[in-house]
Amino acid sequence: MSKDSTIRLALTYHRAWTSGDFDVALACLAPDISFDTPAGPLHGASALRQYMEPFAQGLVSSRVLAVHGSDDEAIMLYDTATATVPSAPAAEWYRIEGDLITAGRIVFDRLPFALARGSVVPAAG
Amino acid sequence: MSKDSTIRLALTYHRAWTSGDFDVALACLAPDISFDTPAGPLHGASALRQYMEPFAQGLVSSRVLAVHGSDDEAIMLYDTATATVPSAPAAEWYRIEGDLITAGRIVFDRLPFALARGSVVPAAG
Repeated sequence: MSKDSTIRLALTYHRAWTSGDFDVALACLAPDISFDTPAGPLHGASALRQYMEPFAQGLVSSRVLAVHGSDDEAIMLYDTATATVPSAPAAEWYRIEGDLITAGRIVFDRLPFALARGSVVPAAG
Repeated sequence: MSKDSTIRLALTYHRAWTSGDFDVALACLAPDISFDTPAGPLHGASALRQYMEPFAQGLVSSRVLAVHGSDDEAIMLYDTATATVPSAPAAEWYRIEGDLITAGRIVFDRLPFALARGSVVPAAG
């Protein structure tokens, strides 16, 4: 793909999942996609959907801050707001082959979500 | 700057700070840089040095996974290993004006560091 097309695909995927349209989002992904997350690697587009959909359902807003790429990769920086965490920036990297995302990685800070959820608590003292 | 030059500057900055060479790293930064981190915004190159240097001192290895950009921005994805957290991927975004990084943001997962340091603990039950 051209660089413009990889960036367009990344933006299409992003707009789809952040608006909860996982039919369109999944059409951007290779069925056997490998996707690294802070919680570990995911294998397959439906595992990725299961991982992202609960977060997407809690989104108040999202905003792409920057996206750049080449003919076979893209990296995007975006910010999100949810009821519990008002600003949670994230970065995603994608490998793009044919017209599908075949591998990716998401990087974000789990700490405010873990504190909000109560799965961790500040240490005493 | 050309796109190649912004990417080269991003890589120079990255190689410098990850190898502990903060003289070279700071020469890549505007003195009044604004830099967003998971802990909040930093103002000025010496505040950024104070933030990054303790982490740099604990680095076992670092590896650039991808870097892309334009004539005034770059985004980089990299992985790091420290004694306490064997894999801590991070993304950094830079705005580049003249031949300096004038603004930036780092995104990474603070949770494994907070757990390793003992500043948070898993909730009981």
